[in-house]
Parts: sequence; C-alpha cells; structure tokens
Amino acid sequence: MSGPLRVALAGLGTVGAGVVKLIEVNRTLVERRAARPIQVVAVSARDRNRDRGIDMSAFEWVDDPVTLAARDDIDVVVELIGGSDGPALALARATLESGKALVTANKAMLAHHGIELARMAEAQGAALKYEAAVAGGIPVIKGLREGAAANEIGVVYGILNGTCNYILTTMEKEGRAFNEVLEEAQRLGFAEADPSFDIDGVDAAHKLSILASLAFGTRLDFEGVAIDGIREVEAADIAYAETLGFKVRLVGIAQADANGLFQRVHACLAPVAHPLAHVDGSLNAVVAEGNFVGRLFFQGSGAGEGPTASAVVADLIDIGRGEFGPAFAMPVDSLTALPPAAAGDRVGRVYLRFTVADRPGVLAELTAAMRDAGVSIESLIQRGNTENGGVYLVMVTHEVPERAVTDALARLHGSENILGRPMLMHILDF
Amino acid sequence: MSGPLRVALAGLGTVGAGVVKLIEVNRTLVERRAARPIQVVAVSARDRNRDRGIDMSAFEWVDDPVTLAARDDIDVVVELIGGSDGPALALARATLESGKALVTANKAMLAHHGIELARMAEAQGAALKYEAAVAGGIPVIKGLREGAAANEIGVVYGILNGTCNYILTTMEKEGRAFNEVLEEAQRLGFAEADPSFDIDGVDAAHKLSILASLAFGTRLDFEGVAIDGIREVEAADIAYAETLGFKVRLVGIAQADANGLFQRVHACLAPVAHPLAHVDGSLNAVVAEGNFVGRLFFQGSGAGEGPTASAVVADLIDIGRGEFGPAFAMPVDSLTALPPAAAGDRVGRVYLRFTVADRPGVLAELTAAMRDAGVSIESLIQRGNTENGGVYLVMVTHEVPERAVTDALARLHGSENILGRPMLMHILDF
Repeated sequence: MSGPLRVALAGLGTVGAGVVKLIEVNRTLVERRAARPIQVVAVSARDRNRDRGIDMSAFEWVDDPVTLAARDDIDVVVELIGGSDGPALALARATLESGKALVTANKAMLAHHGIELARMAEAQGAALKYEAAVAGGIPVIKGLREGAAANEIGVVYGILNGTCNYILTTMEKEGRAFNEVLEEAQRLGFAEADPSFDIDGVDAAHKLSILASLAFGTRLDFEGVAIDGIREVEAADIAYAETLGFKVRLVGIAQADANGLFQRVHACLAPVAHPLAHVDGSLNAVVAEGNFVGRLFFQGSGAGEGPTASAVVADLIDIGRGEFGPAFAMPVDSLTALPPAAAGDRVGRVYLRFTVADRPGVLAELTAAMRDAGVSIESLIQRGNTENGGVYLVMVTHEVPERAVTDALARLHGSENILGRPMLMHILDF
Repeated sequence: MSGPLRVALAGLGTVGAGVVKLIEVNRTLVERRAARPIQVVAVSARDRNRDRGIDMSAFEWVDDPVTLAARDDIDVVVELIGGSDGPALALARATLESGKALVTANKAMLAHHGIELARMAEAQGAALKYEAAVAGGIPVIKGLREGAAANEIGVVYGILNGTCNYILTTMEKEGRAFNEVLEEAQRLGFAEADPSFDIDGVDAAHKLSILASLAFGTRLDFEGVAIDGIREVEAADIAYAETLGFKVRLVGIAQADANGLFQRVHACLAPVAHPLAHVDGSLNAVVAEGNFVGRLFFQGSGAGEGPTASAVVADLIDIGRGEFGPAFAMPVDSLTALPPAAAGDRVGRVYLRFTVADRPGVLAELTAAMRDAGVSIESLIQRGNTENGGVYLVMVTHEVPERAVTDALARLHGSENILGRPMLMHILDF
C-alpha cells in the first residue's frame, strides 16, 4: 500500500460536491481498489460560502485554483470549473506543466485544447484523464481507449446529451411541443437557464470530437463537426417518425474512411429495432463498431452528481494504481490528421417534412424536383393541417447521396407552394 | 517506442486463429495503440497439421506449451487451450511462476483457480488478464475492474451465454421446442456437440463468479453459485411469459449484502421494458448497479473468433502499455470472503407453471397451498391442453420470500392433481 493520493478539487458545483461525497461514502472500497487512500487536500471554487449540502471544513480552501498546480503536497488536480478557456484552461496548463496529474470533466476545454494538453501531459509523463467528460458515468472513454483498442473502428455514434434526449423522449411520450417541454425541463433542473449549448448540439459535438479521436486514432477536430440541434423538431415529426417505424434522437456520429473524417451532430431517425431507439429520458448511450469485435453498446447515466463523480473517481483510482498512459490512446505525434469528409458524398435515407400550401399541383412540383435530382421516394405521407394553414407532407427517401437531396431542396427553394423551411433528418442505418 | 511485445499462443482453435488474424490485419493500428509492435513468436496446439485457414509457418511451433513459460524470448503467454485443469492450468502456473504475463480466455480455470493464479501473479508483479473470459468482446472486466471502480456495486447480472440466448430467442421468435432448436443450433455450429456446459448454466456460472469478485471485492466463489439451465423451458413458458409482459432469458445474477454473497444462474423472466429483454440471438449483456453511477449496461458479441480475439488483444495492448494491476482489482488479501447467502431469504416475484389434471378441485388445491404458504398470486392463466393430457396452469406471484414458494411447492408434492415437475422461474425486478 502506497501513501495517499493527494487530490485538489477546483470547482465545487454539483460534480465537485459529488466527488467529495463519493470519496467519503465509499472511502474503504475506493482505498481497497486504488490500493491506497484517496485524500482530498484542498478545494477551490468561486463562492466559499455557498451551501453545498456537505461539510467542506476539513479541506483547505484556496481562492486562486491555479496556485494548486505549484504545491508539493498535491498529486492530482481535478478540474471541474468548466468553460473551454479562462481559469479552467489556466489551471489545466499549470497542472500539467508542473508534472502533476490532471483529471477533468471539461469536454469544451478538451474539444478546443485537448491536443495541446495531451502533448503537455506526454512531455511530463503526467496523467491526463477525462472519463467524466463524455457520457458521464459510462466508462466509454476507457471502452474505446482500451476495451476496443485492438479494433479498427469504422463508426462511433451515440446519444451524448441527456437534456436533448429527455426533451425528445418527453415530446414522444406526451405528444407535446418542443418549447413547452424545454420550459418544463428548465423548471425541473434538467435543462440550463441558457440551454443553447445542449439543444443546439454543441455539447454533444464537444463529446463527439473526443470519441472520434479515440476511436480512429485521429487528431481531435472539433471544428470539423457539422452541428445541428433539436429546436426544429416538432411533435408532428416525432409522430410521423413513429408511424414510419422510427424514434427521433439527437445523435452524434463520426466515421473515418478514405474520404476523411466525417463528424456530425443532428436529430435523426433511429429504427425502432435499433438499441438507440430504446434509450429514454436523460440516459446516454454510445455504439462503436469494430472490425473484429462487431457492435459494442454502452448505456448509462450521462450526467448528474453521482454518475459524473463515479467517472472522476474512477480516473483517480487509475492514477492511484499507476494505470494510465497517453490521453488519446497513443502519443500525440502518432495521431493522424484526417481532412473533414464532405457530407454530400454520404449515402443514406433521409426524412423530409415540408409544410405545403393546400392546393393542386403541389405534390407534382415536389415529386418532380425529387425525380430531377435523382432522389427516389420510399414512403410518403400527406395528412392533416398545420397551424399556419398549410399541410404537412412527409417523405422518406431511398438511399441517395446527400448531395442529391440538397439539389432537390435547391430546386424547390423559393417555391410558392412551400411554406417555411423544410425539415430534414437523416436515418440511422447502421 | 519500446521493443516488441513478444507473445506465445497456446491453443489454436477459433480464438487462437482469430488472435493471429487480428494481429496481422490490424498490425499498424495495434502498434500505434500499444506504442510498440505486438509480435507472435511461438505457437502451440494439439494438432500441427489442422487447416486453420491462416498461414502459421512464420511462427515457431512448440509441441509442449509448458515449455513456453521458461523462454527468455517471450514476454506474454496467451492461454487458449481451455479446460479448468490439465495442460491449461499447468501452463498458467508455469507462466506466472516464471514472472511472465498471462492472458487467458479460460473462465473455467479462473472460476476454479483464479485466486491461486492471482496470488502467483501478484507475487511476481506479473500481469494476469482475462477480458475474453467473460462476455467475449464486451469490455466488461475492464468496466467493472476500472470503469465502475469508484462504486459500491449492489448487484451485477447479465446474459452471459450466447448459446442459451440464441436458443431461447429462437424458441421465442419461432414458437419451437427446446430440443428442436438445440439440434439446429448444433448443426449450425452455435452449440457444442456436448452442449451441457452451456445449456445447464455452468459456463454462465463460471463467468458470473468472476464478475461477482470484481463487482464486490469478494473472493471468487464458484462453488457458491446456484446453477440451473434452460432444458426445462418449454415453448409454452415463453408464450405465457410474453402474454404476461416478459421475455425468458438465462440470467446470471450476483448480489452482495448483509446476508452474504448470493449468486445464481437461472432462466428468468425479464419485463419487456428491461434492457435484457432486448438482447437477442447470441448477444451477451451485463448490467451493474453502482451506488453513485446508477445502472450501467454493456452489450455486444459474447463469443466467436473476432470478438474474443478483440478482447485478448486488448489485454495484450494493456500489457504492452504497462497498464495493468491486480487481476481482481485489488490484492488477493484485500478480497473479502463472504458466506453464500441463502436463497430462501430473497424476496421477489415468481413464475410457476404446473401441468395439472383436467378435473374439478385442482385449482382449489393449488390456491389453498399457496394461501397456506403465504404466497399471494398476482396473475393466473389456465388455458389449453398439453401433450400428456394435462392442462397448463400458470401463475405469477406477488413479491414473496422464496422460502414461501418452496413451502407451497412442498405442500403440493405428491398431489395426484399435478403431473410432472412444476416449472419455476424468477422475475427480474431490478
């Protein structure tokens, strides 16, 4: 049994308080599994006096978290401040520069500065661990970095944002509108006051860029993620999808092939037989398809005090055991830099919902545009009236290159028959 | 980049050949992830001349696998011989005694000798890794040993035998009888010529005992697993279960609490909303419930050349990286020895199917026995005739201590109204 692993916590929000609680409640077990005690030495946060529902008086309070990096009585800094830059980044850099281990739950910082930080960790032989940054308590960083390490992974995708999944599955169950469910989620604390990072897909994109790097051995490329959120999803879309045998989910998907690295976050239609169609509420799930292992599926709680603390302390245990290596599974110089792959080359089925005027010739115009663009139609539903006096027209295409669908929509652009912006969702055909 | 990790393979069946193929096909990727080449140096198997569909001529052939343990030009021995004792155990002991790393897919050997082998590995500071021994390609050993390490785990359970799951889900989909589906599975190579280890639950019990040790930090106790298989499951049970909202699955379940360590493999009824109800065909899946992380769910291919090779090589990569520690997550002396918990204390719902004589008074006798034993009935179905002239009578109890059900069945023992042995399955209420 070695001496204690001495930990400083920077950031005492929900997750920070959860880490303190976990280390307290599971102290004996954690010590047995790490083969040494894990001991919180110092803490730092913006507001010293906030009630966190837990006694912090045993820990030294530090006003400036960056000073933690220089202290000889600390082995690991846990960064839970959040934000891609600012104090979180300053602390991360100072910690790794001083050769200390860094554990972080900060996907935004990793998405923007992960490669730089991994390089610093490598130079110092220090640990940089971040299981909590993606899919909360699900050990999916470890699953890709180590569990599936022997595989060439063709595609990794998943439900990476619990807020969006909660909203979509509540809309699905209760047939309610997006805005109404969002407001309720905000009241219940399932969505932030400013929900845009979640519902516009940015948070999922941060996480996806990390998964892609691990899965493919590529340099993390957040800028290369095409991002779309769930604001445009209507209750009607979810109902049509159900009729057609699908569930609507916000999915982050990454693929690496000869065309380059394709990364996209978007609301899409999962066939009901697909495991992602059964991921409800605020759960997260990740699928990776390896050339030997086949399909791996991981599911669990993607956020919240307990699950995120579980992931942070798992990282601390690994560090306590000395079981860690390069942050992105291989030295930074071994990561390949793939160019972003163009979406237009991708072949797949597409769901399209048009709001059209209720007059003769509309269907003829639409179907002619599809034909001229080379898009063939698998199913078509026309039914009911919308609030703005139009009629919904929903179609699912056969497999087509995405550029053909773009072409079809361009042909229809400006048509007086089409009211509002068409809604497009891809179908998850893995 | 260090020198190559030099590997010897003992046992060249499906998995051994898969490991050779994987290392060949994914050579570059594996080398990047392990930060060194993984190189097969020598191989050993019973029959040198068997066609394995892959060129083995580059590897030195060794007749006696145990000699591999003594060689200076080998870093890791991969034991894929199988069998709990005999040559596999001799090789495992010799390998660890010589301070070499051992990778094994041998759940039977671990279930019987895991603690002894872990102690030997510990004494030498050698790696003992066995991701392939449980749930094939799913990184569930890693998920419990490391991913969920911060949690007190209350229960771990799962579908651990792909052959049984294939048989049960085929019976479910096609309404066919057990024997017929088993024979087909044997013809198709999904079941062994001697299928008893699989269908009688022994294989799942081996795996369960390993998972329990990791989940609870307890000494592996295979003898403490209550084992039941799927031979008694009739197509009618599956149909009744479906009517009642359940799917029949062979589940291994382990729980640790104040009563001790409870371990059981049995066909049970999973509610259709439970993730295990959606695990079809030869897939495996494991659920662990941690006190901070909540429910973790892992699913993937539990057997076969590719998935098992994926797990073996993941272990090799960990060893190549130097990322390994105690085999059962903590030093053997830190594992607690829990007494087996008695099933009778357990509270749960139970499915019972009686074949009864078709005459007056039968229902009265059965329900009186239930009443007298304190078993209250939630649903009851009486319908149709069986082949032996009786009538099926199916009931699901409310939550009761298992001893009450045992008592009720004892009261009915010898009754002339009951034809054949009653079928009992527990309901998965986690």
